[in-house]
Amino acid sequence: MTFERPVRIRFSHCDPAGIVFFPQYLVMTNVLVEDWFNESLDIDYSAMIRTRRVGLPIVKLDCAFSKPSQMGETIMLTLALRRLGRRSITIDITGHADGATRFSAQQVLVTTSFETGASIDIPDDIRTALVRFAPDAAGTTQEPQS
Amino acid sequence: MTFERPVRIRFSHCDPAGIVFFPQYLVMTNVLVEDWFNESLDIDYSAMIRTRRVGLPIVKLDCAFSKPSQMGETIMLTLALRRLGRRSITIDITGHADGATRFSAQQVLVTTSFETGASIDIPDDIRTALVRFAPDAAGTTQEPQS
Amino acid sequence: MTFERPVRIRFSHCDPAGIVFFPQYLVMTNVLVEDWFNESLDIDYSAMIRTRRVGLPIVKLDCAFSKPSQMGETIMLTLALRRLGRRSITIDITGHADGATRFSAQQVLVTTSFETGASIDIPDDIRTALVRFAPDAAGTTQEPQS
Amino acid sequence: MTFERPVRIRFSHCDPAGIVFFPQYLVMTNVLVEDWFNESLDIDYSAMIRTRRVGLPIVKLDCAFSKPSQMGETIMLTLALRRLGRRSITIDITGHADGATRFSAQQVLVTTSFETGASIDIPDDIRTALVRFAPDAAGTTQEPQS
Repeated sequence: MTFERPVRIRFSHCDPAGIVFFPQYLVMTNVLVEDWFNESLDIDYSAMIRTRRVGLPIVKLDCAFSKPSQMGETIMLTLALRRLGRRSITIDITGHADGATRFSAQQVLVTTSFETGASIDIPDDIRTALVRFAPDAAGTTQEPQS
Repeated sequence: MTFERPVRIRFSHCDPAGIVFFPQYLVMTNVLVEDWFNESLDIDYSAMIRTRRVGLPIVKLDCAFSKPSQMGETIMLTLALRRLGRRSITIDITGHADGATRFSAQQVLVTTSFETGASIDIPDDIRTALVRFAPDAAGTTQEPQS
Repeated sequence: MTFERPVRIRFSHCDPAGIVFFPQYLVMTNVLVEDWFNESLDIDYSAMIRTRRVGLPIVKLDCAFSKPSQMGETIMLTLALRRLGRRSITIDITGHADGATRFSAQQVLVTTSFETGASIDIPDDIRTALVRFAPDAAGTTQEPQS
Repeated sequence: MTFERPVRIRFSHCDPAGIVFFPQYLVMTNVLVEDWFNESLDIDYSAMIRTRRVGLPIVKLDCAFSKPSQMGETIMLTLALRRLGRRSITIDITGHADGATRFSAQQVLVTTSFETGASIDIPDDIRTALVRFAPDAAGTTQEPQS
């Protein structure tokens, strides 16, 4: 199962070469994760941050930027859950347009308490939602990174 | 006539106080102007920039920030054309949520050639679209600022 | 008395026209206020935010952008305290290079408790530092905006 | 040989958790590469972009974020040239503070013509400067990615 959202490339995303400035792609992936939680997993992302004080800081990021994207283009972002760990998730995000991959990113996000700054087990309701989203990504017991 | 678009406040818009970092509001207004051109005026904004090499740099900006906005809120942005000059437009943008104004901004944008860096008369097709959008804003002959 | 710091225009500040994207100027003014507190007023800005939980949200901003700035240029930013209120300060910031003003901004910043979200009187140590910085800006008893 | 520059963590770098929002680290690495070109390689970065119309888009990025950084901290950024290809360079960037690594990034940057959008051989003067900076990174003939 994947989660998809289109994003329009804006003037404000672009650099003097007229193409997306690469950190802006990472901002887009952050917004995508928010949408995924809110709209697909049915977990209120802002309540998670503000009320439950649980965050999802990134600990690992691997990206390939294969083709530049220009202002005015619409890129389809696709998110898949690759792995569901005890305290972390690994997600794959790709951006496509006109049949070509623009970038792909793999991210490891760790559930973390804002109060202590320490990693915590993924809360049960979030884990349940994640398993429903991608049953194949769950079940692993090894936790290589976190 | 006004142009409206909702915008969701994201984690990436917010500062350590958990509220929108004010330059992010200005990025939102830039995106709103793009949407207004593309969706309401029927002027392809990215083609204007990339092909016609005409831009809309800002020369004047006056803002009031009346109430902070928090992650997860949806703000309704409203744009009105206040004045249509020979080489510039003056627009009013406000952001509302829950019946309260969050911010208001007045901006003067000048049609500018990217080739020369100099201001140019508003191209005819853009002027026609602007007059249709707000007939009352047009017709003034004085051009105080540009 | 004024506070000055140079800032180099970076690739990451610039838009597809190759000039500073205007919200980036506002980010620069935010950094300048931090430097002013840390280096001139001798108030630890991050401790003010993180430990004392006092912030300086902006309530009013008026800017003029008179000449674009390009990547590679160094802009001298100058900050002056125009007015010291009971719960707010008004500052003037200008950016110059090559003898020409690039932009000027007037900002009203309000001392605010992060705990309550409400404005508070400027703490005594900060007030003392501000009076030392600009004795002429103090002493006014009227507080028009906050 | 390495190139080092300190960077102060600003309010504007930080997210609602009060720590650096990770795309901001990538903006910092972009600024670091600019400084490296200007101050160590003695290649005018903005002239390269604006006059020679040669850019350095990123095609590959691998990061680890090992410890969060907070507003007010100063992070020492260190850049090393790992590999000098025909049309690309591979660089390692790390951020340290208080004896702990905050993040590390490996980036592959490809010399690209802004006119054609295609990769080009690294211009001779830039290659010479890069070899002087890190003789050990040069001399490889294999070009795995670009």
